[in-house]
Amino acid sequence: MDTLTNDESRRDFIKRSAALGAGLVFIDPTALFADNKGEMMNGTIKTKGYAVFDTSGVFKPWEFERRPVGDNDVLIDIKYASICHSDIHQMKGHWGPQQYPQVPGHEIVGIVKAVGKNVTRFKVGDRAGVGCMVDGCTTCENEEQYQSDTLFTYGYPDKREPTGISQGGYSQSIVVRDHFVVHIPENLDFKVAAPLLCAGITTYSPIMKFDLKKGDKVGVAGIGGLGHMAIKLAVSKGAEVYAFTTTADKVEDIKGFGAKEVIVVEDTKKLYEHAGKLDFMICTIPYQFDVAPYVATVKPKGFFTYVGMPEKFEILLSNLGLAASRVNFNASLIGGMKETQEVVDYCAANKIYPQIEMIEAKEITEAWKKVENREARYRYVIDSATI
Amino acid sequence: MDTLTNDESRRDFIKRSAALGAGLVFIDPTALFADNKGEMMNGTIKTKGYAVFDTSGVFKPWEFERRPVGDNDVLIDIKYASICHSDIHQMKGHWGPQQYPQVPGHEIVGIVKAVGKNVTRFKVGDRAGVGCMVDGCTTCENEEQYQSDTLFTYGYPDKREPTGISQGGYSQSIVVRDHFVVHIPENLDFKVAAPLLCAGITTYSPIMKFDLKKGDKVGVAGIGGLGHMAIKLAVSKGAEVYAFTTTADKVEDIKGFGAKEVIVVEDTKKLYEHAGKLDFMICTIPYQFDVAPYVATVKPKGFFTYVGMPEKFEILLSNLGLAASRVNFNASLIGGMKETQEVVDYCAANKIYPQIEMIEAKEITEAWKKVENREARYRYVIDSATI
Repeated sequence: MDTLTNDESRRDFIKRSAALGAGLVFIDPTALFADNKGEMMNGTIKTKGYAVFDTSGVFKPWEFERRPVGDNDVLIDIKYASICHSDIHQMKGHWGPQQYPQVPGHEIVGIVKAVGKNVTRFKVGDRAGVGCMVDGCTTCENEEQYQSDTLFTYGYPDKREPTGISQGGYSQSIVVRDHFVVHIPENLDFKVAAPLLCAGITTYSPIMKFDLKKGDKVGVAGIGGLGHMAIKLAVSKGAEVYAFTTTADKVEDIKGFGAKEVIVVEDTKKLYEHAGKLDFMICTIPYQFDVAPYVATVKPKGFFTYVGMPEKFEILLSNLGLAASRVNFNASLIGGMKETQEVVDYCAANKIYPQIEMIEAKEITEAWKKVENREARYRYVIDSATI
Repeated sequence: MDTLTNDESRRDFIKRSAALGAGLVFIDPTALFADNKGEMMNGTIKTKGYAVFDTSGVFKPWEFERRPVGDNDVLIDIKYASICHSDIHQMKGHWGPQQYPQVPGHEIVGIVKAVGKNVTRFKVGDRAGVGCMVDGCTTCENEEQYQSDTLFTYGYPDKREPTGISQGGYSQSIVVRDHFVVHIPENLDFKVAAPLLCAGITTYSPIMKFDLKKGDKVGVAGIGGLGHMAIKLAVSKGAEVYAFTTTADKVEDIKGFGAKEVIVVEDTKKLYEHAGKLDFMICTIPYQFDVAPYVATVKPKGFFTYVGMPEKFEILLSNLGLAASRVNFNASLIGGMKETQEVVDYCAANKIYPQIEMIEAKEITEAWKKVENREARYRYVIDSATI
């Protein structure tokens, strides 16, 4: 069987696409797809999923095959998968053209159904979670997400896959390299565990890297799936949390998550009233926004970490605004595998659960519209039994 | 006489324009100009300068009046003023509409000709330098440039000025609040002192804030007036400097400035060959550029400071690229008055001089074209005797 390291076509593709950012690629697998046609392998896994067939965001049931379980792989019987705004961006082509049909979903939990002969970390029957990555570097010390050979969970070229690309979690089963699977503790409900695999780790990782001290003033901008987890996590670490939302009817929920103050942002200029207030801000807004007033809420020499991923990944900054605030602007992409296990364990131990709404697979199309209309409260979780 | 603190109209203007960035305003004085008409005061200073009369960048000699020398002011007989790329941006309206005629210039040296009765720091005959600010907060601890009432050297509304706005250094004399004047040491040639007042301090300030250690790898991107000073200053502080230029025929000069390596950037994608190499990068590019590959040259958790000011002050970032590099992006605006005196003294003591070309006033129009065409080597200095 091909191994990832020998997958020269994907490497070539990655090389061609390196311009996007330091070797990281976000899709356009169409260029490679032709190479993969007809390379179906034995032992493939038949499964069902809900896929999109174009940029419309309309889902239909779809039967497809996954790659065979390799020596280092784990086959997972998916129980739940939740909906991330990134699913919508990628499927609608906001980050580049896509190959269809494609099954999104990178917040996945289920039960291990089979393991390859080299796998020691998991056995059949284990509770397992999968996030944004399914293969890649296994020795890069918690920085798997930044390696050039990372195979992201859906839409990425993979010769081993019968469909030519990785296919995500809105489905009944998935084959994943063992290193990219985390354990889900027995005391953590599967339904609330799912969103931890992206929303949880994406906010946990920068919060931990900031080296938060008790009483630090932490801002969270954009209170959706990621933002509400950022609040809960920062509060649990002892921060005084200031939440910034454009949706006034979220205020009571947000206070319930533990925020000290909720700022409803109707006019970004009013953010200057909070200038220099925060030690750190984590911003989850998944579209272009007026950056300078948000950055200005952070103290000089403080840090502003952007984890939202807008269209084309582009963000327009006022350099003058940034200079005036004297704030360090950085960005963070999910987190490494070690810290993904850590956030899952931490949330289980501290009873930090995302606020979710359960849906059936046939409701995904509608749920996506609600996410786009800011009506999600705060994560939709798909029951895979309904696929 | 009006004092700045009582200048309510300018404060109102600043308030209206606060959206630009945390209280900082960069022009559009036209809105205020009507208020100032006809408010000529006694004791005004007649002077000559070279002004632009529209966005064309074409200079003509112009006679105008400056405000009287107030109790805290210094009147300077200008000897030399040098040309900064910012002059061009502002005069051509790249940062917003301008009032004309306007005299640019914020790298100014000369001899004190008169002082107000409260002035103790200067006496007639002293050698003096003026940079980007001429009035504002005098108690804000080396952060004058970030205050909302800072009066920048040209184009800013000032009721006290007969022309309604501050007028810059391409002229024979200037009236400046004493706090915003620095001493030019006797052993520093006036001609090479001028560029220190902006190019010097703008690069010195972030280099000092970075807390450079001997042997640190410092990148400098954009080797013009600012960039060549950044190289010289960083080298003098013990850094190993890597210079990034798009102009191949600058290579020998740049080595002469002390850079260890010169990277001629023909294709920004090739910058990924230098990924993660630097501890710190200072970027002086005064126009929109492909940020991610430059940022990627810095080590994870390193700092990238942008001191260039492109059109509209806007800079488009790839958030994904920034995440991949794990670099802190920040911006810096000139420097405070204390550190401006410091850089002048430091350059005098260590014989760090900008590389200049002398021009006459009638050559300014042509010199601007050369700056825009990247033909300047590396700072044009105007001999005020030719005005």
